[in-house]
Amino acid sequence: MTEQYLLSADRQPTLEGVERAAAKIASILPATPLLPLEIDGTTIWCKAECLQPIGAFKIRGGWHRLTDLTDDQRRHGVVAFSSGNHAQGVAWAARELDVPATIIMPEDAPQAKRRNTGALGAKVITYDRMNGNREQLAAEIAQDTGAVVVPSFDDPWIVEGQGSCGLEIREQMLAWTGSEPDQIIACCGGGGLASGSALANPEARIIIVEPEGWDDMKRSLEGGKIVPVEQNPPATECDALQTLLVSPITFNILKDRNAIGVAVSPAEVHHAMRVAFEKLQLVVEPGGAVALAAILAGKVPATERTAITLSGGNVDHQLFAKIIAGN
Amino acid sequence: MTEQYLLSADRQPTLEGVERAAAKIASILPATPLLPLEIDGTTIWCKAECLQPIGAFKIRGGWHRLTDLTDDQRRHGVVAFSSGNHAQGVAWAARELDVPATIIMPEDAPQAKRRNTGALGAKVITYDRMNGNREQLAAEIAQDTGAVVVPSFDDPWIVEGQGSCGLEIREQMLAWTGSEPDQIIACCGGGGLASGSALANPEARIIIVEPEGWDDMKRSLEGGKIVPVEQNPPATECDALQTLLVSPITFNILKDRNAIGVAVSPAEVHHAMRVAFEKLQLVVEPGGAVALAAILAGKVPATERTAITLSGGNVDHQLFAKIIAGN
Repeated sequence: MTEQYLLSADRQPTLEGVERAAAKIASILPATPLLPLEIDGTTIWCKAECLQPIGAFKIRGGWHRLTDLTDDQRRHGVVAFSSGNHAQGVAWAARELDVPATIIMPEDAPQAKRRNTGALGAKVITYDRMNGNREQLAAEIAQDTGAVVVPSFDDPWIVEGQGSCGLEIREQMLAWTGSEPDQIIACCGGGGLASGSALANPEARIIIVEPEGWDDMKRSLEGGKIVPVEQNPPATECDALQTLLVSPITFNILKDRNAIGVAVSPAEVHHAMRVAFEKLQLVVEPGGAVALAAILAGKVPATERTAITLSGGNVDHQLFAKIIAGN
Repeated sequence: MTEQYLLSADRQPTLEGVERAAAKIASILPATPLLPLEIDGTTIWCKAECLQPIGAFKIRGGWHRLTDLTDDQRRHGVVAFSSGNHAQGVAWAARELDVPATIIMPEDAPQAKRRNTGALGAKVITYDRMNGNREQLAAEIAQDTGAVVVPSFDDPWIVEGQGSCGLEIREQMLAWTGSEPDQIIACCGGGGLASGSALANPEARIIIVEPEGWDDMKRSLEGGKIVPVEQNPPATECDALQTLLVSPITFNILKDRNAIGVAVSPAEVHHAMRVAFEKLQLVVEPGGAVALAAILAGKVPATERTAITLSGGNVDHQLFAKIIAGN
């Protein structure tokens, strides 16, 4: 591996990169469990990424990116923008590696995510989600401090890092069922998890799931080119999936794989969270439950070997209690 | 192994039996994760048994016992009494092995546990917890049908089966920290999990935790002989730990190991459930949270290498929502 490769953010993510990320991650984090769930007589497999130390899969991309920084880059630190899970992923890796981290978070991010990001030692700066320009804010900080910007999905390391989740799914499913997954249903914000997992599972059908009104990847895949979310998207509890515009890096991988997009309603998300509570004993946040919601709602048929991601579990107490109680 | 050994319920549980149980269980169930949790700067390790397919560790003892039945015994079936987790463990194993199962449950068992036990195909019979004699009821059914009684803790197979949890803890902790646990804190009803895990960890200090008012194992250990719960014990949400009298099998193992008993309050249990929700993204039932409660309340000091059990997560929606919301 050359210095140039390590420094290039323009390269494309690859399966080899996913495997390299997975090896680094396996040395520091035990694999999260792949839990069986029976739905109408068919068993699907649920990757419990909400059990990561930061409560979400985003620790993977953060670790892969930050461990590939040069010594000089580490000294200058990193800057990232995120509603909270990527924030925690970068902050966790930064703390482990003793790298200064600045995180730009929307003002309306869940309290739990803001608190946890700060507790990990990162400097937190807030912005207005619908009006502020977080990319510009990050670029300014990077220029002032020399910090490396760590985007939440538009970055080859991040896609490869998240792809290690798909590689674990493949290995665990092979170990327990004797077969690789034939279908992977992934929660989708910017598409890092979905596109990385697609690289890790070259033979599987890929489904991406978004909240209604925030289904820009779905509409982009259907239209064959990247389109933003529609004007004035609805309020959503799926804060982790509120992406205004996806990136060529993730979109092109999913487009080449003929990935299918599905959108789910708030009621479908709530039902999925209750099923995860009752059948899997897992706390899943709204954005982490959309893949399960799609299959429970019958919007994606279960195949012989379907795997889904339960991608995060950072949700405020009151909201979770309200949803679980069915109020 | 002789036929006589297989049929003897009078034998004592052994480490070799735990190892045999663990091998059988590992062939059908992936190890549950051992999750790190930082408390005041010290990391403890939490065994997430709430992630078992039935939501509790009881699947272990059920599987070890039922797989050791003779063909003739399998045809006549099994009968068990339980507030719900052992019920589901036996029912799950019975379904997998095509063995008829009758389960005797208290009338006030959580709805989720009754529903799940029935859904696994077992015949469910209810009784009055404070007045009915479940042992006699089970003995009558056994006499009528030729079924084998599968007690929830007073049985060598059950202790060995639950001990496989302690063996997994030992192996996982060794793999991730390089050291075996020096202290195991286990939730305690009849003491099957605690005594089995003690066999699996001969060098560790053993702490058992019970709800206040249901601390008969604690008082038995302190007095050096088995004593029942006091008259009119208080109502408790820890339905899984409402044991009126422990057994010589579990008590003697814990006594020989100088196990220490601790009792926790309802408020301490609620706090532990909220911490498991927020920091581990796990749904833990009240009885499954007592070990974590003991350490969070400072009733047991964290050592360098403390492991605790989060032994079950079958809790009704409304109760969980109320506790998590802090109402």
